[in-house]
Amino acid sequence: MNVYPDCLKKLILQFSKLPGIGNKTAERLSIYILNSNNNEVIDFSKALNDLKDSIQICKVCNCFIENDLCYICNDSYRNDKLLCIVKDPTDIFLIEKSSFKGKYHVLGGLISPLDGTTPDNLNIDSLEKRLNDIDEVILAIDPSQEGDITILYISDLLKKYNIKVSRLARGIPVGSSLEYIDEVTLTHSINDRVEIK
Amino acid sequence: MNVYPDCLKKLILQFSKLPGIGNKTAERLSIYILNSNNNEVIDFSKALNDLKDSIQICKVCNCFIENDLCYICNDSYRNDKLLCIVKDPTDIFLIEKSSFKGKYHVLGGLISPLDGTTPDNLNIDSLEKRLNDIDEVILAIDPSQEGDITILYISDLLKKYNIKVSRLARGIPVGSSLEYIDEVTLTHSINDRVEIK
Repeated sequence: MNVYPDCLKKLILQFSKLPGIGNKTAERLSIYILNSNNNEVIDFSKALNDLKDSIQICKVCNCFIENDLCYICNDSYRNDKLLCIVKDPTDIFLIEKSSFKGKYHVLGGLISPLDGTTPDNLNIDSLEKRLNDIDEVILAIDPSQEGDITILYISDLLKKYNIKVSRLARGIPVGSSLEYIDEVTLTHSINDRVEIK
Repeated sequence: MNVYPDCLKKLILQFSKLPGIGNKTAERLSIYILNSNNNEVIDFSKALNDLKDSIQICKVCNCFIENDLCYICNDSYRNDKLLCIVKDPTDIFLIEKSSFKGKYHVLGGLISPLDGTTPDNLNIDSLEKRLNDIDEVILAIDPSQEGDITILYISDLLKKYNIKVSRLARGIPVGSSLEYIDEVTLTHSINDRVEIK
């Protein structure tokens, strides 16, 4: 690292903070950028700045929006009665790649007694306001200690409404093979087995 | 890609231009940045801008410098008589990781009849001005068609000076094994075999 000018070291440091980018890759990427022409670097820097400047939060579902318009809340082709509850706004981008065509609600975190995150810190009030028009809720929350607590809390909350509650199926990923699957996943895929009709 | 806000799409595009970063990784990195706090994103954007603003070219060796000072040209512990000729300024960063402790000269490109790059477009004039004080030149240029033409041209140019000329050894990388080496490299490593004294 000593051979690099200070400004290059700073960029290497920034790249190496990104997930999955080691120091070697960070050096390679920074040197690539040093060799790029000025306009390309300005475009990259602008894209980073614009991201935080343009992104807002939808007042209804708390997802990321641009230009004050939530394309999900305003999409009349979506099923208004089906609500998918997620932890972060970026989870929506992942689920949008599936065939899901309902609406979303972002919690903004998970209940965590250790971190001091209580239901009051999450978007639960705004969730309750939406529940009267909902038939089914899918809890698309990662299985972790905090995730499990949050799932328990919300499914308990939903009991007073007449709403069907489900969670994502756990099992063997498509394209994978039995021999590469861990025991817990395999147990889940047997317990949640689907009848062939 | 359709699910992303425009400003996120733009950042994904910028990341996917980098070498070794596919579309999936570009999405993952951009979403990570979207979830980072504002200051981290501003630091990253600033590091990119500062890079192009702070970097200058040394008038002697044409390497990248910061604050008008070339730490290589001004290093009195280096061997002034040994000159390593490279294509790009960033090649110096790679060679500095070795035990080389001479000086450098950056060509700024390679002779390429197809691209119309002639010796006049390269830093050859400034090279000739330095040659009177040099004992040995190492041509650290990648073996390619353009590289071979450039090596030929420069070694021809050096004939009128009483200068020893060498190129980097080709052979088996340290830590590698015979079975993974291609035939051309193996042939080079046999032809360039080193006597055990």
